[in-house]
Amino acid sequence: MLGEMLENVRSKSPLVHNITNYVTVNDCANIVLACGASPIMADDPDEAGEITTICDALNINIGTLNSRTIPSMLLAGKKAVTLGHPVVLDPVGAGASSLRTKTALTLLEEVKPDVVRCNMSELKTLATGSATTKGVDADIADRVTTETLDSAVAFVKEFAAKTQTVVAVTGAIDIVTDGTAAYCIKNGNPMMSSITGTGCQLSAMTAAYIAANKDDMLKAAAAAVCAMGVCGEIAFEKLSAADGNSTYRNYIIDAVYRLDGETLERWAKYEIR
Amino acid sequence: MLGEMLENVRSKSPLVHNITNYVTVNDCANIVLACGASPIMADDPDEAGEITTICDALNINIGTLNSRTIPSMLLAGKKAVTLGHPVVLDPVGAGASSLRTKTALTLLEEVKPDVVRCNMSELKTLATGSATTKGVDADIADRVTTETLDSAVAFVKEFAAKTQTVVAVTGAIDIVTDGTAAYCIKNGNPMMSSITGTGCQLSAMTAAYIAANKDDMLKAAAAAVCAMGVCGEIAFEKLSAADGNSTYRNYIIDAVYRLDGETLERWAKYEIR
Amino acid sequence: MLGEMLENVRSKSPLVHNITNYVTVNDCANIVLACGASPIMADDPDEAGEITTICDALNINIGTLNSRTIPSMLLAGKKAVTLGHPVVLDPVGAGASSLRTKTALTLLEEVKPDVVRCNMSELKTLATGSATTKGVDADIADRVTTETLDSAVAFVKEFAAKTQTVVAVTGAIDIVTDGTAAYCIKNGNPMMSSITGTGCQLSAMTAAYIAANKDDMLKAAAAAVCAMGVCGEIAFEKLSAADGNSTYRNYIIDAVYRLDGETLERWAKYEIR
Repeated sequence: MLGEMLENVRSKSPLVHNITNYVTVNDCANIVLACGASPIMADDPDEAGEITTICDALNINIGTLNSRTIPSMLLAGKKAVTLGHPVVLDPVGAGASSLRTKTALTLLEEVKPDVVRCNMSELKTLATGSATTKGVDADIADRVTTETLDSAVAFVKEFAAKTQTVVAVTGAIDIVTDGTAAYCIKNGNPMMSSITGTGCQLSAMTAAYIAANKDDMLKAAAAAVCAMGVCGEIAFEKLSAADGNSTYRNYIIDAVYRLDGETLERWAKYEIR
Repeated sequence: MLGEMLENVRSKSPLVHNITNYVTVNDCANIVLACGASPIMADDPDEAGEITTICDALNINIGTLNSRTIPSMLLAGKKAVTLGHPVVLDPVGAGASSLRTKTALTLLEEVKPDVVRCNMSELKTLATGSATTKGVDADIADRVTTETLDSAVAFVKEFAAKTQTVVAVTGAIDIVTDGTAAYCIKNGNPMMSSITGTGCQLSAMTAAYIAANKDDMLKAAAAAVCAMGVCGEIAFEKLSAADGNSTYRNYIIDAVYRLDGETLERWAKYEIR
Repeated sequence: MLGEMLENVRSKSPLVHNITNYVTVNDCANIVLACGASPIMADDPDEAGEITTICDALNINIGTLNSRTIPSMLLAGKKAVTLGHPVVLDPVGAGASSLRTKTALTLLEEVKPDVVRCNMSELKTLATGSATTKGVDADIADRVTTETLDSAVAFVKEFAAKTQTVVAVTGAIDIVTDGTAAYCIKNGNPMMSSITGTGCQLSAMTAAYIAANKDDMLKAAAAAVCAMGVCGEIAFEKLSAADGNSTYRNYIIDAVYRLDGETLERWAKYEIR
């Protein structure tokens, strides 16, 4: 069933508008292409609304946000919602500065994204208005483990229900929920955290998945999260002893390029709570 | 003869000023280095004119254009022309927003670039003021095939003659013309379209080629287009079954780094019409 | 002893705030992760000061500087110094435009960075206010060779003493000095200059090294420079005949990811003058 989500991306090839940071933007573009969709990046207020009009989905990522791009995020976000285009919000570093926290909360309220893709520290910031964070990485205190899974699922479900969004929180165990059902996903590899932007890449890919599967965004987001984790595993197996995080980054995108629905089904490790 | 164009880049090592998008900028810098030239990126109005003065060529790419960089493009473009430096214009996404269309047309008229490097949808936008486009990729209706080659060549020639520029339109078959002679180039591999920025990279490399071959820009641009296609073929042969678009990107730049004039001559597949 | 500097980065995992150019920013983030630290990029005046507050070091790189980021550099730089966070300045392209020269000199005077990491042409610009430069690369006349080493060491020492900073000038022979002792380092490979941003990457990594070794910044900076050179050698040995600068870039970051203190000690080639 998750495999079908992936195949829909390949057959429909949605065009995804990304307003995203300049750190990981190239990887985001390449992973969108790898999964079978097409990316376009545009972040100036003078064209953001028009560009989103010709697209099938919008991915808003607030990493390296600035005074020129924040208005574009709001403008394009509202336009996309008006047009019925699915929207993903990645609140990178919410909690690390008041500008990021405030911008993320404003986007959440005024755009009402379909999917929020983030780490647990960022979600806590969105839920409570403040949290501990280690820059753009989740605080160690916020790690989801087998021991803390029950309470974590309850917390994420509550947030998803309250905001009426699908929430995809990634970490050692990923939780994807619409407030009712929660996919608890155990794919992935710890080495993924030694690459910049695996989260950003997942958010961009999630936009492609929900664009191609608008009638089941929960399952589409879960499929994207599983696909990223599975590709992290496939890529890790391919590494030799001298390879490091740069080669690993390339291999993950390569694996996304090669992934098909059947392989995704076979490798996916999740339970629904 | 095309090989000589390449060797001139390696022997003269021109310095290329790039005002370009933040999506593919790193690949552009690395491909300029790979072909034997040197890149410098600078896009603030407070230095764009001065930077272009110390360079040998200017590459203007309007992807992720914004209110701060558009004036820099015009300013540096005019300065470069005044100094006799060759200028390449890559009208990325012309047709996708009125800002891009308008900016591309303004640059075409006010800067009068030596080479326009684009896809067929973008060229149609420049020629007619409007066209269909799929974001930053050519519309499927605009694909140049063996069946449509005659009319495509006539169309590109007419545009080149009218604007007095060399036009390099890339796709399944590439057309490079100054309005009189047209190189129809059949190098390349379809997988190149699954990497972000092969067009941007080619534009940056073309600036290096015309800088090193100012007395024959048509042949220089044709050589750059052939070189990119040949490297797409060489890199494709190197791929193993598990490799995807990320590794392919690296292998193409690697191939540019290794390419010599003799290999370019041997692999080049073109006819002149 | 240099190996201990490296191990301290891995054990302390400092968070490094980078205000840097959009050309090499992804490589900078990945190399910071590779060496065991964490990166965060933020360049808007509305958050630059706050972001630097939660970090352990600041890396200011003026490549692709602009009217919005220059105030952020000054603001974050002063904030970091007030908080006792180590600061690295990379004056990319100082000498190539008056904006870059002026900004670099202003940062040097008003922020007083702990380490300046640059090439010899950039240092001459900082020392004299003007110099020849080939864009962002050192002018050939400024190359440090065995013949010119004595005078080069004297020149760099004088600058370091006058400005009370550690200066790390990289080239064929690297010189790292606090004005008293000078590490003359012969690691590295000429092919490193065919990759964009090895200097930028080194500056980002140096910020991580000095953050983890605040009580001996000279040795920390020397260790970072040696580490980069050693990884350039390790990566070069791994290249096959068809590999070029793109694969080499990946292999260098991979080598940084795998490097341990013992290997660094064994491969390091330097003398102290």
